[in-house]
Amino acid sequence: MTATTKLMTPTRNEHLRERAARVVPGGMYGHVDVRLLPDGYPQFFARAQGARIWDVDGKEYVDLMCSSGPIVLGHHHPAVDAAAAAQARLGDCMDGPAEVFVELAERLVRIVRHADWAMFMKNGTDAITVAVMLARAKTGRRKVLLAERSYHGVLPWCSPFPGGRTDEDQAHLVRYRFNDLDDVRARLADHDGDVAAVLVSPYAHDDYPELPPVDPAFARGLRALCDETGAALVLDDVRGGFRLAFGGSWEPIDVSPDLSAWSKAIANGHALSAVLGSDAFRESADRIFTTGSFWFSSVAMAAALATLDVIEKHDALGTMVAAGARLREGLETQAAGHGLGVRMTGPVQMPFVAFESAHHAEMLRCFVSAALDQGLLIRHDHHWFTSAAHRDVDIDRALEATDVAFAAVRSAFGGS
Amino acid sequence: MTATTKLMTPTRNEHLRERAARVVPGGMYGHVDVRLLPDGYPQFFARAQGARIWDVDGKEYVDLMCSSGPIVLGHHHPAVDAAAAAQARLGDCMDGPAEVFVELAERLVRIVRHADWAMFMKNGTDAITVAVMLARAKTGRRKVLLAERSYHGVLPWCSPFPGGRTDEDQAHLVRYRFNDLDDVRARLADHDGDVAAVLVSPYAHDDYPELPPVDPAFARGLRALCDETGAALVLDDVRGGFRLAFGGSWEPIDVSPDLSAWSKAIANGHALSAVLGSDAFRESADRIFTTGSFWFSSVAMAAALATLDVIEKHDALGTMVAAGARLREGLETQAAGHGLGVRMTGPVQMPFVAFESAHHAEMLRCFVSAALDQGLLIRHDHHWFTSAAHRDVDIDRALEATDVAFAAVRSAFGGS
Repeated sequence: MTATTKLMTPTRNEHLRERAARVVPGGMYGHVDVRLLPDGYPQFFARAQGARIWDVDGKEYVDLMCSSGPIVLGHHHPAVDAAAAAQARLGDCMDGPAEVFVELAERLVRIVRHADWAMFMKNGTDAITVAVMLARAKTGRRKVLLAERSYHGVLPWCSPFPGGRTDEDQAHLVRYRFNDLDDVRARLADHDGDVAAVLVSPYAHDDYPELPPVDPAFARGLRALCDETGAALVLDDVRGGFRLAFGGSWEPIDVSPDLSAWSKAIANGHALSAVLGSDAFRESADRIFTTGSFWFSSVAMAAALATLDVIEKHDALGTMVAAGARLREGLETQAAGHGLGVRMTGPVQMPFVAFESAHHAEMLRCFVSAALDQGLLIRHDHHWFTSAAHRDVDIDRALEATDVAFAAVRSAFGGS
Repeated sequence: MTATTKLMTPTRNEHLRERAARVVPGGMYGHVDVRLLPDGYPQFFARAQGARIWDVDGKEYVDLMCSSGPIVLGHHHPAVDAAAAAQARLGDCMDGPAEVFVELAERLVRIVRHADWAMFMKNGTDAITVAVMLARAKTGRRKVLLAERSYHGVLPWCSPFPGGRTDEDQAHLVRYRFNDLDDVRARLADHDGDVAAVLVSPYAHDDYPELPPVDPAFARGLRALCDETGAALVLDDVRGGFRLAFGGSWEPIDVSPDLSAWSKAIANGHALSAVLGSDAFRESADRIFTTGSFWFSSVAMAAALATLDVIEKHDALGTMVAAGARLREGLETQAAGHGLGVRMTGPVQMPFVAFESAHHAEMLRCFVSAALDQGLLIRHDHHWFTSAAHRDVDIDRALEATDVAFAAVRSAFGGS
């Protein structure tokens, strides 16, 4: 193929993108909406293995997005794949659960300190929704407090996006300021006796680019306020669960929620979510009805059991943290070398970068596009993730890409 | 093992049921809630193959529940399993979709006449919810009409069960009588200019025990009323899709919805749902944001492509209808032989039985429990399903069980 015909021939990604534009609204929707993707981000992927992923044109990337969270042990972890395949040979979507259902509920109750019971669903938002239903059923109250700019899913009742919903859908949502206990106290007082639940993320993981950690005193204060008022404390561990700490993201600060919602990393990519709860909320589950055609399917549960095994026995969290620390240190050193003011935000295993400049947003887009070009899969509109599959060689390969990306930023924007 | 020790030893199902009761609210929830299950229905299943399923104690059943709909080709259809396994070797939950995403969207647009585009999710209710969001985004209106006693999922906005929701969740739902066009017209007039969508099931599949078919004139009338008023006609084909007709359940009566929701049978048990829509609703998709961590996973899409292939090329619908017709004929003959007045309801491939007696409910429970004991998996609170895996031998085996079950009903209740 000559250089000329190569220029004329669309890539496989371009070809698929054109076909998708005909049969999918806008060409794609959701978090992989083509209008949201950074320049150079492939729309379609061919395969993935460990910490690497290949687009449909065969280009290899170090995957620092981890499918936006689910891939916690790397793509195709052999123990997870084997467990899923073994269960698949028996049965997946049957007329009720398999034995793995009980085993997984028992395992989660053992792992997560506040949990006395478990329920399973498919989407992270299913879990948050069921937790709120349980809180309302138990308390007979209506209001749900949640942090400004927090994301708990995109059903009409909780979506931060206005399209397609009515005013009534969010009539009982009340926003508070993360890490501001006085503000929570004021919101509870505003709705005295009518607050069913306080939703909280383990840290402000949607408050870009800062991603502030939770103040342990705030977490303890939330617990005390919920105890005082009878509202359910609901920890949304859909994204942080099994990445920030093994027994729940607030285990290290010793704060137990009443209900917690889990998904993403729970089964290393298999579609599964869970609500875990304390005994006080067991009976309220009898007062709601919730279900789904695929909620009792067994393969994802077998995959979850294997995932939890590997996380626990092989210190997967330690590996993720070490990979994240190596990445952070490398990025900080590189930025300084390029004369760029950069601050790493988020926990090291869910990292993001803030350019200390009024042009942060444009600089980040430039950085991400250059990194993509160099074979590092990251985004500008979402923090990144390390997994237990990220070895030194993967992080070092990522850093080769970011070094070029910082140079591109420096070249385009000058020093800061 | 002697008879005495056998009586003393709990079955595997009983053992698991006790363990589940400790770590799952009520021991189980949703449509497999232990309080809903007929006497003798196993809570846990070990494996499934074709038209048969085995509980954890090794008892074999002819499976006429088909996992409440998803199993349309029988458990472990080799072509579906092979397609899923091949995609799984490449990648499932990646950082974006694989090529199968485009292929599946193209395939559905080709198969379903009203469809110009497709979007994919996980739960059937996800699809209904997105369809309603699209209708509201397009029209700027709020009200959603749906039939009395119809089931469109159990999120707070649509659940027929009151627990865990607020009044505002269903502030804009308006109920109409199925097959009563005057009633729909009156409801549209009540909310003139504010009706975003009319939801409808292909037939009244939750109106037990009658399960009345749609009057084609009603369907045509709904289409005309939606055209007049600008409301979106949304066909909920989550349960009927790919069982009642290949191109959509109302294709045989030549009525096209604007939007249709699909799930269950689309991937023979893999977790997948879809919204299909006409071009008029394409732009409204740009005005909503909806997504999920597992919505772009590829294995379920590969399974769907294989499922649709087999349905189309091997006349799976014809096989299901033939199995259902054999079952119906056998049941009618048996009931008459036992001196019981019985009316089969529903389409033959989604059948149910009505005892012509004031004691219908008790007689049905007796019938179902006796059938379960005889190795036929059916329920009293949900219609049944045939699949393309139901051969004559399976239906004949089912009829052996029902013959004993009718005798049990006759013995307990006398003739009717």
